[in-house]
Amino acid sequence: MSSGFCARRIAVIGLGLIGGSLVRALRANVGVEHVAGCVETDADAALARELDLVDSVTTDIASAVAGADIVVLAVSVDAMRPVFERLRDVVDVDTIITDVGSTKGSVIAAARAVLDTQTLARFVPGHPISGTENSGLRASIDGLFVGRRTILTPLEETRADALARVEQLWQSVGAQVGTMAPAHHDDVLAATSHLPHVVAFALVDMLADMSERSEIFDYAAGGFADFTRIASSDPELWRNIVFANRDAVLPALGLYIDKLDGLRRALQDSDKKAVIDCFDRAKKARDRFTRASSHSEEE
Amino acid sequence: MSSGFCARRIAVIGLGLIGGSLVRALRANVGVEHVAGCVETDADAALARELDLVDSVTTDIASAVAGADIVVLAVSVDAMRPVFERLRDVVDVDTIITDVGSTKGSVIAAARAVLDTQTLARFVPGHPISGTENSGLRASIDGLFVGRRTILTPLEETRADALARVEQLWQSVGAQVGTMAPAHHDDVLAATSHLPHVVAFALVDMLADMSERSEIFDYAAGGFADFTRIASSDPELWRNIVFANRDAVLPALGLYIDKLDGLRRALQDSDKKAVIDCFDRAKKARDRFTRASSHSEEE
Repeated sequence: MSSGFCARRIAVIGLGLIGGSLVRALRANVGVEHVAGCVETDADAALARELDLVDSVTTDIASAVAGADIVVLAVSVDAMRPVFERLRDVVDVDTIITDVGSTKGSVIAAARAVLDTQTLARFVPGHPISGTENSGLRASIDGLFVGRRTILTPLEETRADALARVEQLWQSVGAQVGTMAPAHHDDVLAATSHLPHVVAFALVDMLADMSERSEIFDYAAGGFADFTRIASSDPELWRNIVFANRDAVLPALGLYIDKLDGLRRALQDSDKKAVIDCFDRAKKARDRFTRASSHSEEE
Repeated sequence: MSSGFCARRIAVIGLGLIGGSLVRALRANVGVEHVAGCVETDADAALARELDLVDSVTTDIASAVAGADIVVLAVSVDAMRPVFERLRDVVDVDTIITDVGSTKGSVIAAARAVLDTQTLARFVPGHPISGTENSGLRASIDGLFVGRRTILTPLEETRADALARVEQLWQSVGAQVGTMAPAHHDDVLAATSHLPHVVAFALVDMLADMSERSEIFDYAAGGFADFTRIASSDPELWRNIVFANRDAVLPALGLYIDKLDGLRRALQDSDKKAVIDCFDRAKKARDRFTRASSHSEEE
């Protein structure tokens, strides 16, 4: 983490799980002189002060971003546009803007609708691929980004020096930074994150229906807690994400329903080969993933 | 675990994850004088000896079960019938028989096809709801059953003293034992275990398809390893389980596909309320499950 990243002031707008964990990490860097937080309510501000996670905290975007080298938007994806609107009028002409939204197409569309070309040149869309099923400032943790990937999806307009600066910021908190086209990011995340959340929420909802008639959950096996952990994620946050990335989630969900339908037919038709071929390919892929993933949470 | 369970000899046929973990637990009980293992190959027998997990091990069912108080069938569900056939001719007239199969209807059908009424009176179908994504004797662990449920599904013919004895066996290794009608067991397990495995295998298989065209797995988020862990389970074992329990898995899979289809339509029709209602119910159910589950693996 000795990336040598320095800054006079970083402003983080929105102190939830990601924003809160980011200010924790930035404050641990002596090269960052001031970490400013911006939250919606006085109660949130009081909590940030109580936890001593920022050098200053305010509910006023203008004062949070004044003099900032970099402003990080860490609000939920549907709240990005109003923040861009407020930022537009108050942000310094040399401040770099980045975000942590889980979907990039929707955030970029909001930015393009609001920001002028000069400001877009200093905008670096980003997404740290990290998180837990918990949300909110109290769920923020030290080291959340260490060894995890952060994807940056620069626009055509984005200046190379702005991209480099944001890359250094994420490297300074331990992330492995890569770049990707926004649409590709959205396809990849639809498959590996948004669809799995839909799948898990839908399964637990279905079991809850059944459970009204029987004691289903009492007999959940060992793997069940792991398998359904992401169904404890924040419903509103995830509703917003799947709608923001609907164009990528819908085809992935369609493919998945087709895959399940194929398994249903194979089961009906006693096609044991089709079923084991599917299970086999899945196990091989998952085991490869586990071996390759040097920062996996596997034991 | 001071259940006072005593036995001269317990024979466990099949030393995989469950059978192996059971002999580990039984041997820790000084009240059990002899724990006999029965395996398919000489190599398996050599491994059981090397790991020192049994008092004796053989590939011959007759010698394994001679003089046993209780014989535990711990082979895969599709291998139960041939084991019943070999047992029929060699088992003592007062030996109690139980099994650990994940599906009960199919095992009971195999038992009924093979065993006479006297023997069925001493048969106590069972299922310890425990396991990991690993399989085989080397994956067996101490304490696998502690705090976990074991479901017994006695037949009409099953004698009460046989049921009580098998109940005590499982209590002696730390399990919480309950009884259930076989068909109800199969419905509950289809929902909480068999369907989740199908769901996870199908998802990872679908992602593996996509991954051939992109670096999908490189960008899997934090929850992905947990969510897909059960897709690292043994494909053949699970193929056999879903086919053995096909009558219960098919309707559950059908309900699940309908649920996903409903979410797809809601996403298409911008029905944000339907999506958040589903996610909300799921989170509430999953959080209740987590709180209720005193032996949960949650942090």
